[in-house]
Amino acid sequence: MINKIKPIKMIKTILGRELPDYIEGYGVVKPFQGAFSDVGQKSRKAVSLSSVPPNERKVLKNLAEALDKLKIRDGMTISFHHHLRNGDHVLNMVLDALAKRGIKDLTIAASSIFPIHAPLVEHMENEVVTGLVANYISGPVAVALSQGKLKKPAIMQTHGGRARAIESGDLPIDVAFLAAPTADTYGNINGVHGKSACGTLGYAVSDAEYAAKTIAITDNLVPYPACPIEINQIFVDYVVEVESIGDPKGIVSGTTKITKDPVALRIAKLAAEVMESSGLVKDGMSFQTGAGGTSLAVAAELAKIMKRDGVVGSFAAGGITGYLVEMLEEGLFRSLFDVQCFDLKAIESYRDNARHQFMSASMYGNPHTKGAVVNNLDIMILGATEIDTDFNVNVTTGSNGVIMGGSGGHSDTAAGAKLAIVVTNLMKARLPIIKDKVTTITTPGENVDVIVTERGIAINPRRTDLLDKLSKTKLPLMSIDELKSVAEKITGVPKAIETSEEIVAIVEYRDGSVIDVVRKVL
Amino acid sequence: MINKIKPIKMIKTILGRELPDYIEGYGVVKPFQGAFSDVGQKSRKAVSLSSVPPNERKVLKNLAEALDKLKIRDGMTISFHHHLRNGDHVLNMVLDALAKRGIKDLTIAASSIFPIHAPLVEHMENEVVTGLVANYISGPVAVALSQGKLKKPAIMQTHGGRARAIESGDLPIDVAFLAAPTADTYGNINGVHGKSACGTLGYAVSDAEYAAKTIAITDNLVPYPACPIEINQIFVDYVVEVESIGDPKGIVSGTTKITKDPVALRIAKLAAEVMESSGLVKDGMSFQTGAGGTSLAVAAELAKIMKRDGVVGSFAAGGITGYLVEMLEEGLFRSLFDVQCFDLKAIESYRDNARHQFMSASMYGNPHTKGAVVNNLDIMILGATEIDTDFNVNVTTGSNGVIMGGSGGHSDTAAGAKLAIVVTNLMKARLPIIKDKVTTITTPGENVDVIVTERGIAINPRRTDLLDKLSKTKLPLMSIDELKSVAEKITGVPKAIETSEEIVAIVEYRDGSVIDVVRKVL
Repeated sequence: MINKIKPIKMIKTILGRELPDYIEGYGVVKPFQGAFSDVGQKSRKAVSLSSVPPNERKVLKNLAEALDKLKIRDGMTISFHHHLRNGDHVLNMVLDALAKRGIKDLTIAASSIFPIHAPLVEHMENEVVTGLVANYISGPVAVALSQGKLKKPAIMQTHGGRARAIESGDLPIDVAFLAAPTADTYGNINGVHGKSACGTLGYAVSDAEYAAKTIAITDNLVPYPACPIEINQIFVDYVVEVESIGDPKGIVSGTTKITKDPVALRIAKLAAEVMESSGLVKDGMSFQTGAGGTSLAVAAELAKIMKRDGVVGSFAAGGITGYLVEMLEEGLFRSLFDVQCFDLKAIESYRDNARHQFMSASMYGNPHTKGAVVNNLDIMILGATEIDTDFNVNVTTGSNGVIMGGSGGHSDTAAGAKLAIVVTNLMKARLPIIKDKVTTITTPGENVDVIVTERGIAINPRRTDLLDKLSKTKLPLMSIDELKSVAEKITGVPKAIETSEEIVAIVEYRDGSVIDVVRKVL
Repeated sequence: MINKIKPIKMIKTILGRELPDYIEGYGVVKPFQGAFSDVGQKSRKAVSLSSVPPNERKVLKNLAEALDKLKIRDGMTISFHHHLRNGDHVLNMVLDALAKRGIKDLTIAASSIFPIHAPLVEHMENEVVTGLVANYISGPVAVALSQGKLKKPAIMQTHGGRARAIESGDLPIDVAFLAAPTADTYGNINGVHGKSACGTLGYAVSDAEYAAKTIAITDNLVPYPACPIEINQIFVDYVVEVESIGDPKGIVSGTTKITKDPVALRIAKLAAEVMESSGLVKDGMSFQTGAGGTSLAVAAELAKIMKRDGVVGSFAAGGITGYLVEMLEEGLFRSLFDVQCFDLKAIESYRDNARHQFMSASMYGNPHTKGAVVNNLDIMILGATEIDTDFNVNVTTGSNGVIMGGSGGHSDTAAGAKLAIVVTNLMKARLPIIKDKVTTITTPGENVDVIVTERGIAINPRRTDLLDKLSKTKLPLMSIDELKSVAEKITGVPKAIETSEEIVAIVEYRDGSVIDVVRKVL
C-alpha cells in the first residue's frame, strides 16, 4: 500500500486569515467560522481515576516522592494554574525537579505564564518542554516563543476555551499540579488562608476534575477538614507540603489604583456615557471590567451614574478588584462572580462575604456548558493592543509581532456581553491602535460593539440599534475609518511588520477553532 | 444461528446468600465479594449536553412546556432527590403529569421514597412506572413493592452507591428533576432560601451533573444570580416555577428531640463508654450519628465526655441535626459535613456558618472517588432492624419481610468508619433483634464492629484490638451468641418468615455488587 502524504493546503477563516490546514506539532486546523458557529450537542469526557479506600494516606513526604508516585514520563502533559500570578513558585519548582530527572518533551498546560516563569525558557531550549498551552503569556517566555525557541507551536486559548478543551478531552492532562495556599491532609483546598493566599481558585477546577492525576502542592498543610473547600478531596490524589509556593508580593497587588491620567479619565467618561446611552444601565444590570487603570476608571464612572440614579445591578464578574468589592459593599451590585482575586481586598471579601461568589473557569466562560456567566453579561469593558477596521481585536501580540499577552477572558466576555466596549488610547507609543489589519486576531469583530478613544467613538456597523441610540447624543461618533485617519494624520501609517513563515503559536478561539496564528519574528 | 439461552444458575455471595446469576428486569448479578474487593482504577462517565449560547432563556412557562421540551418517552429513567423528604410534591406532580400524557414504562431513580409518595403505587399498577431505584423506601410504596406490584425488581442502593452508579454510568438518567427551594432564572440553585427551604442539596449533585437533561422545579424563582449557589447553572437546562414544591411540615422537623426512654438512655451511655474505651475520643476525632432518638442520645453522651476532657473533634458528618449544630457551636467539632439538613436549626446553621460545610453524596460516600468523607470517619453510630451472629445488619426489611427502609448511608459509613457501633434495643415489638440469619443483608458484618444493647455489648471477633481494650473495662461484654440467647430466653425463637421465590428488590452494595435480594411476601 502506498503511503500518500496529503500536501498541506492553505485554508481561510471566516475573517479571511490564511492558515495551513495542518500544522506540524499541532494537527488538523479547524478554521474559525464565527463566534457561535460551533454550538449544540457537546460532551464532557470520561475520566479514569484511582479510587482511594479508607486508611490510604494522601500526604507524601516531599516533591521527590510525589514525582515518583506520579510516574511522570517523557511526552506527558502537566498542568498548572496561574492564581499565584507573578509570585508563583510551583511551576518552576516542578519543572526544575523534572529537568533534573532527565524528563524530556513535556507539554505545559498552564492557564497563564508570567515573567517569573523565565526559567521555562531554558527548559524549552533543552527540550525538557516542547509544548505549551496557555491563555495568556507575558515576559521572557513570550519573547522566547516569538523567537521560535519552543519545538512545537504554542497553543493560546481563552479562559473559557481552556476549560472547554480540558473538559471535552481536547486537552488531556496527565498530571495537574495545584498550587494550594491551603490544603488539608486529604486534599481539600482553598486559596483564602495561608501565607500565599490568592483568593479563588477558579482556573484550577477543570484541571483538578479532569486530569488523570491531581496533586496539591501547599505551604499551608492544615488538619482535616479545610474550611472553606474550593477544590474537593474527591478529585485530589496526593498532597505534598513545601516551604513556599509563592511570593506574596507577586501574588496580589496591595491596593487597586484608578488612573489619574487625564486622557484615560476622558476615555472612561466617554465609555460611561456610551453605557448610559445604550439603555443598559438599569436595575439588574451586570458588568465586567479588567484590573487596568482605565478599566477601573470606567467602573468608577459607572458607580457615579448608578448611585445618582439608584440603580442596583445584579452582578459584576471576572477577576475581581477591591474597586468592585466596594461597589458590592455599597449595594451597587447584589453579587460578585469571582474567578480570580486581583488584590487583598478582593481576597478578604471573597473569604468573608457570601455574596462574593466563586466561579470556575468553566462557569465563567466555557462555551460548551449549559450556559456560562459571560452569557449573562450586559456590559463588558475590554482592552486592545490593536483593532482593525472590521473591529477585530488583537491582545495577543504587540505591534512588533512579539507575543505579549493573549485572550484570557477577552474573547469569552466579548462573545457573551450584550455590549462589549473597547477602551483605549487612539495612539500608544506613537503608534496608531486602529489598523487595516491587526497583527494577530484574538477576538472577532462580530463581538466587539464599540471602540471608545479620547478622540472619538466608533460603533460596529452591525449594531444599528446602538448607532440609532447613540446618534441622538452629543457623543463624538465617527466611523472606524475616520477614527483611523485621525490617528494616522498624527502618526503616519506604520509599516507592516515582517515575520518569517514559521508558526510559533496557534491562537484558538474559545470553541477550539483556530482564529489566527503567530509567526516567528525576524 | 441457534439462539442459546443460558440457563439461570444460582451463585453465592461471600456471605453465603444464594442469588440467581441473572435477574429478569435487572440483568447480570455481580455477587458481593467483600466490602473492599472492588477498588482500584475506576471511571466517571462521559456526559453529553446541549450547550447554551447567549440569549437563550432557560425559564419555561409551566410544567407542561417543560415536559414538551424534555421529550420524555416511554422507557426513560427520570430522577428525583429526597431533600424535601415527606413533604415532597415534585415527584408526585411530575409523575401525575406524565401519566396523563400516557407515558409508560418509566424507571424512577429517586434517592429516597417516603409515605407522601403513595400515589406512585397507582402508577406502578398502571405500568406508568415499571422500575424503581432508591436508597431508602418507606410507606405505601415499600409495601406495594413487597407485594410484587412493580413490574421489574426495584434496585436498592446506598447513598454513596447511588452517586457511584450515576457517575460511572451504571445508572444512566435521562432527565433529572431537581426540586429547588430557590432557583434563579439561569438555573443556579440553593436549598437555604424560600418557603420550601430544606438546607443542603447533597443528594442532587450527581443527578444534576450526569443526567442527559436537568430541570429545576422551584417555588422561589429569584433574579439572577442566586446566592448561595449549591448547584450550578452550567449543569441545568431549564427552570420552571410552580406554586409549591413541598409542604414545609414534611420537609423538616421543627426541633431535634433526644429520647427520654430510660432503655435508650442506658444504651447511649454504654455506647459512649465503648467509644471512650476504644481510645478514639481524642482531639481530631470525627463522628457521625443518625437523627433517631437513641442516636442523638449517644451524641449527647459523647458531648459530655468531650467537654469534660476538653476534646476538640475535627468534624461530624452526615445528615445534620440541631444537636450536632450545638456541638459545632460549642467548639466540640471544628467543622460539619452536611449532605442533608434534618431540622430548621441545621438549615440556619448551614446557611450562616461557614464551618457547616456542604458535601455531595459522592463526596459523602462514593467508594469510587479519590476518597469520600466516610473514609475519614472515626466513629459511626448505626441503627439496625436485625443483626445476625456474623454481625450482618438488616435495615432494609422488617422481620415480616416487608421493605421498610434501606441502607441510605448505613453501608457507606460502616465501611469507612474506624469504629462502627450499632445501637439497638435487644428486643423490639417482642421480637429479638439478633438472629442466626437476618431477613435481608444490608451491611456486611465485616464492617460492623460493636453491637450495644441494654442487656449487653457484643464485639465483632475480627476486632481483637477492641476486645483487648474493652475487656479491661467493666462493660457488660458478651459474645453475640450469648446476647442472642438472652433475648431468646424472653421472646422465644421466632419462626422464620416465608416468602415466595419472586424477587421484588435487589439490594446493591455501594460498589454495585448484589449483597442480597428481597422476595415477595406471601
